[in-house]
Amino acid sequence: MNIGILGAGQLGRMLALAGYPLGNRFTFLDTTGNPSVGIGEVIVDPENTQLETFLDQVDLVTYEFEHLPVELVREIEARKPVYPSSRAIAVCQNRVEEKTLFERLGIPTPAYRVVESAEQLKAAALELGCPVVAKSVTEGYDGKGQAVLKTPEQAEQAWAEIKHSKLIVEAFVDFVREVSMIAVRGRDGDVVFYPMAENVHVDGILRYSLAPLPDLDEGVQQTADSYILSLLDELDYVGVLALELFQTPDGGLLANEMAPRVHNSGHWTQNGAVTSQFENHLRAIQGLPLGQTAALAPTCMVNVIGREGDSADILALPDAHLHRYDKSERLGRKLAHINLVAPTHGELLEKVRRCAALLPEASAPRFSFE
Amino acid sequence: MNIGILGAGQLGRMLALAGYPLGNRFTFLDTTGNPSVGIGEVIVDPENTQLETFLDQVDLVTYEFEHLPVELVREIEARKPVYPSSRAIAVCQNRVEEKTLFERLGIPTPAYRVVESAEQLKAAALELGCPVVAKSVTEGYDGKGQAVLKTPEQAEQAWAEIKHSKLIVEAFVDFVREVSMIAVRGRDGDVVFYPMAENVHVDGILRYSLAPLPDLDEGVQQTADSYILSLLDELDYVGVLALELFQTPDGGLLANEMAPRVHNSGHWTQNGAVTSQFENHLRAIQGLPLGQTAALAPTCMVNVIGREGDSADILALPDAHLHRYDKSERLGRKLAHINLVAPTHGELLEKVRRCAALLPEASAPRFSFE
Repeated sequence: MNIGILGAGQLGRMLALAGYPLGNRFTFLDTTGNPSVGIGEVIVDPENTQLETFLDQVDLVTYEFEHLPVELVREIEARKPVYPSSRAIAVCQNRVEEKTLFERLGIPTPAYRVVESAEQLKAAALELGCPVVAKSVTEGYDGKGQAVLKTPEQAEQAWAEIKHSKLIVEAFVDFVREVSMIAVRGRDGDVVFYPMAENVHVDGILRYSLAPLPDLDEGVQQTADSYILSLLDELDYVGVLALELFQTPDGGLLANEMAPRVHNSGHWTQNGAVTSQFENHLRAIQGLPLGQTAALAPTCMVNVIGREGDSADILALPDAHLHRYDKSERLGRKLAHINLVAPTHGELLEKVRRCAALLPEASAPRFSFE
Repeated sequence: MNIGILGAGQLGRMLALAGYPLGNRFTFLDTTGNPSVGIGEVIVDPENTQLETFLDQVDLVTYEFEHLPVELVREIEARKPVYPSSRAIAVCQNRVEEKTLFERLGIPTPAYRVVESAEQLKAAALELGCPVVAKSVTEGYDGKGQAVLKTPEQAEQAWAEIKHSKLIVEAFVDFVREVSMIAVRGRDGDVVFYPMAENVHVDGILRYSLAPLPDLDEGVQQTADSYILSLLDELDYVGVLALELFQTPDGGLLANEMAPRVHNSGHWTQNGAVTSQFENHLRAIQGLPLGQTAALAPTCMVNVIGREGDSADILALPDAHLHRYDKSERLGRKLAHINLVAPTHGELLEKVRRCAALLPEASAPRFSFE
């Protein structure tokens, strides 16, 4: 089966690496003019003229990036199966639709307001109580299109900086940790859940994901499972869905946002789980049985951002798994990640610190359970 | 680093899949006109006219197949680093040189004779005591160029069938099991050893490899380690070396043959060891630190030969890892393998039987420790 992927970056690359052993071939449609995937056939199409060529070659279509024109995805859907569907994209690329869906399904979220002017932004900041975070309703990811307001007076400046006609304003959450759920739904409706991961962000970019959590109450995992299950079923979803949440001091969970694709906070599964998120996404969209999601051992994913470390130093760490994306260095760019595996959480944390010291742009994380 | 691979079959394919995450790129030189690797750049060169093009593109060269003209490899060595070296190829592709080296290093082998006529073959069969196995001195693999003589009178027929000017004749060994050692030597001389695997062959083709062995005496593993270490050091070897041995009822080991490359009996390491043989070969030839070789859990590799099973059925087995080679079906052709992992050897054997039942051309194996 030839799988078409919209986008040609590291997520597509890792999907392909997981899919060749299943006998798949891959064709990537890159609309940026700057693909980095490095394997498979890449159709570079910045002028949007080669969709037919792409569709002629593929049996089904998936994507590594949800900020795609919904109309384009609907057009593709009329010709070839697309998983996850355009409906998932429409919801996930619009923060208002996403929040509305969370609410309708009874998934708690931080308090928020939707604003359409600097004045409304200021009023929302007053009402919610600063600090607040303002985010563009569409097109935001990796901390882009966001601003933090420490006082309502910063509304005008934030509005000018974000440059978007509609923003969502969220109250800051007093959280114990940021977590994420990765789950997979097959074409037959079967669902599997990965153990919840703790995520550490710096400047809005994910730096570390660690799973499984040593101090996680089973009830909290079950709550998270039920939240993501209701989303998967509601959207009649096929493939990997990622849901980012905040865990509050009382153990509660508040949904932050979701992504209809394999997700950076699930990269630990490549070396830390029986089946990786990449393989399970491919199994799901092809109608194959889903693989087991159990963790093999405590695992931490360390993102390599901006500048790479020395491969020899990194590979000298025991049970360290390097995943490079074959990209050139650039400030803030995700270049690689390293999965570290250890028999205990204590040894894992020690290894994470040793690894962070080898990366020019990384600082050692502090996890909630330390 | 761009790595050149001589050969473009499934071993090259799996090297590439292990090497992309290290940031490597791959160029394959295929001289058969029938490459199956399916990824990377393949230079199809049945007329041997494109060696320059290949060498211009690569930083170093390795190979997936040792039956290469030694002169060709020496020519390449004069231009780019080649690992393992042409000396390893010269020894491994000639059964007499191989046996001579084993003897010189004190590695026991089955009794054997070298013969150059049907008459000498008959005499050797008489002397060694039938049954004996006759093998062409060069070009034999996967049971090709071999014949079993049940009586000395079959010498003439065997000689005619093998069609080779020089044969090696080996006494049959009363063995408990066939085993293999996979070890890796880095450019700096560092060596790591994988746990010994038990191999089950049918008609000279490997069908199953299982590791680690539940009943292996530690002293036997140490003996095997010492044998392969002496070979690695003697050849100043860089990369993965495979050594096939017979284990006799008294626990002794007799060397059968070796292969200077990643080996089918090491495929279990992809899902059953901390670092796969493929990644460790690439680490070695690039001068990177070698990865840990410890087994994660009891693992069995099941070869898929001739005809494939239904992927959905296979993937429905828990902790089953499918590795397809994207080849068309043909009698006796290696098309894929499946790595099965289980918490205990008992559960593993049960899973192996279930898996074998899903493969049209497989029959369930019997391992020595059952």
